[in-house]
Amino acid sequence: MKQYMFTPGPTMVPAEALLAEAAPMIHHRTPQFSTVLMEVTEWLKEIMGTKQDVYILAGSGTAAMEAAIANTCSPGDKAVCVAGGKFGERLGEICQVYGCKTKVITLEAGRSFTAEQAARALDETPGARVLCITQSETSTGALTDVESIAAIARERETLLVVDAITGIGIHPMRMDEWGVDVVVSGSQKGLMIAPGLAFIAVSPRTWKAVEKCTSPRFYLDLAAMRKNLQKKTTAFTPAISLIRSLHCTLTMLRQEGLENVFARHARLAEATRAAMAALGLKLVAECPVNGVTAVWAPDGIDTDKMTKKMRDEWGVTMAGGQDELKGRVFRIGHMGYVSEEDLLVAIATVERALREFGYEFEPGMGLVAANAVLFGGR
Amino acid sequence: MKQYMFTPGPTMVPAEALLAEAAPMIHHRTPQFSTVLMEVTEWLKEIMGTKQDVYILAGSGTAAMEAAIANTCSPGDKAVCVAGGKFGERLGEICQVYGCKTKVITLEAGRSFTAEQAARALDETPGARVLCITQSETSTGALTDVESIAAIARERETLLVVDAITGIGIHPMRMDEWGVDVVVSGSQKGLMIAPGLAFIAVSPRTWKAVEKCTSPRFYLDLAAMRKNLQKKTTAFTPAISLIRSLHCTLTMLRQEGLENVFARHARLAEATRAAMAALGLKLVAECPVNGVTAVWAPDGIDTDKMTKKMRDEWGVTMAGGQDELKGRVFRIGHMGYVSEEDLLVAIATVERALREFGYEFEPGMGLVAANAVLFGGR
Repeated sequence: MKQYMFTPGPTMVPAEALLAEAAPMIHHRTPQFSTVLMEVTEWLKEIMGTKQDVYILAGSGTAAMEAAIANTCSPGDKAVCVAGGKFGERLGEICQVYGCKTKVITLEAGRSFTAEQAARALDETPGARVLCITQSETSTGALTDVESIAAIARERETLLVVDAITGIGIHPMRMDEWGVDVVVSGSQKGLMIAPGLAFIAVSPRTWKAVEKCTSPRFYLDLAAMRKNLQKKTTAFTPAISLIRSLHCTLTMLRQEGLENVFARHARLAEATRAAMAALGLKLVAECPVNGVTAVWAPDGIDTDKMTKKMRDEWGVTMAGGQDELKGRVFRIGHMGYVSEEDLLVAIATVERALREFGYEFEPGMGLVAANAVLFGGR
Repeated sequence: MKQYMFTPGPTMVPAEALLAEAAPMIHHRTPQFSTVLMEVTEWLKEIMGTKQDVYILAGSGTAAMEAAIANTCSPGDKAVCVAGGKFGERLGEICQVYGCKTKVITLEAGRSFTAEQAARALDETPGARVLCITQSETSTGALTDVESIAAIARERETLLVVDAITGIGIHPMRMDEWGVDVVVSGSQKGLMIAPGLAFIAVSPRTWKAVEKCTSPRFYLDLAAMRKNLQKKTTAFTPAISLIRSLHCTLTMLRQEGLENVFARHARLAEATRAAMAALGLKLVAECPVNGVTAVWAPDGIDTDKMTKKMRDEWGVTMAGGQDELKGRVFRIGHMGYVSEEDLLVAIATVERALREFGYEFEPGMGLVAANAVLFGGR
């Protein structure tokens, strides 16, 4: 059965990038690998909107999230973390593990954190070392306006840590222009390769905090990363095949043009939202992201069962809900290597599943709505 | 130019495993991936000689080394670390980063740490939390007798941490039988896949130390790894493509038979040693490992230049020396996907390079010696 992935990471990987991963092994302490590493690093800087280094870790996105905290926060430091869902919660947990006095701001599912809330939270927590936010909260599909929050954090000398794991390559990130201090990301989302790489970039003022930070770190030590990148290498053995695969997808994204990549994701998201509205369904997020659409299931439909049927019987993988959204939400991933044409498969599959599970609506109306956004005729 | 890799990791990867890495992406929270994960885990348990869980991290081997310390050592704990080379030194550095009172025993290059030295060191450091050793020190090619040292550590209630990164799949490891407490390894050595996975297994008595350990850890938290593996999944997004590639190489190693795999490495090492002796060259290690042979270069030959010529002009990659061995030592990797036939390429290339750099010997004598060990006729 032909397989389709509409998951919010890992995503479908272009065949070119799969084959790049399968190239014969090369050694990492060679000019050949250094060339690849430095090109990938330059291209990641473009995509993150920074002139600072971007460090590539062998690890999951969570490793980069921990690197952000382990290099900036010492025990007793104050941290403000926004938990708009599962991934925001994780940054709060990491701060707690590192002994921070951690204020966790829990948002109602689907709400986005605002600059006003940021100002209030930081005014209530003077001297906070870090404010941690999630650009694109994968569990609810809610978007955070990073730019406006960065301005608030900058005024108050608090470092803004942004989990952009499902943001990079989907939404613009202008790290330097907006004044973001730490950006972390991962490989299996907008960057379209397999999971196993994580990325971190830090601002000049972050380095001052890094120097003072007393938390233990070795594998995640930013200073070691910086020192080695200056020598065009990595501190520890890099995930060579994944980096070569990333070289391939970054080439593809640059050929498409980053602005076009962002516009495609916006179109895919708009079409998905239009389709869900046409089916009478509500989104979880009030301000939705462009990489994934989280949708409240109709009453009485268990989305775990629904997504299992899609995957096991029809070969189409989507995600259900996590934690308190489990069973109640389904999530259509449309990030990375997803074309406008592909999206029709996702919408038709959602329609088919909803019908099977007893939801009543006029068949095809989701497709008609998506088609209008994607291919015109509205 | 056809490329050959005789490096002590990353090693050559079988085409079957490269292609497994290139299989279309699947999602990790699926029964399909759980099946792969649990099979790979069972096979790693066999190869490590343990009934305990083996946890698979997305990361370099160093991540697993840090996990060993971060989960067992609290600030002020005593640690004894054996630095027989670059990789042994690293475990000492990690202990220091975690605030341990760290006694580093620096061995002369090529020496192996003995049970007698272990007994003395632990008697001088009563109550040491960990004793850290390297089974196969990649930088010098020296082998440590893990079994005899494990007995010493067990008597003194010190946890024995073994870096087996270039040991696993090359030398036997009988973790449970020998009473080793923590074994760490990596993917790009005897296990024959790309770098990017690290492994850690811990003994039941290690878990007691883990519970008491106050060091911060999140990505490397063993308790989270255990909890998730019980649910047939991983705490964080796994490196899916690398794990599927590992499923392929572990299948190959099981088909060859682990005892045969160890015997092949022993033959490759013996043939390499015989060849170097025939060329009048001396090994760095007094008790050499079977995965890599480190050789002192003849006076006046710079091994950085020698290995560069081999790689850039002839397509054969070997390693030079590291740190204080830089320029003075070359290292022939014969671990992983290296056949007896392949080894002739390595020996012929060493001969050719030595001649080019002015060393005088009877050409072909290395090959004759290797051939006798590999294919008989002695």
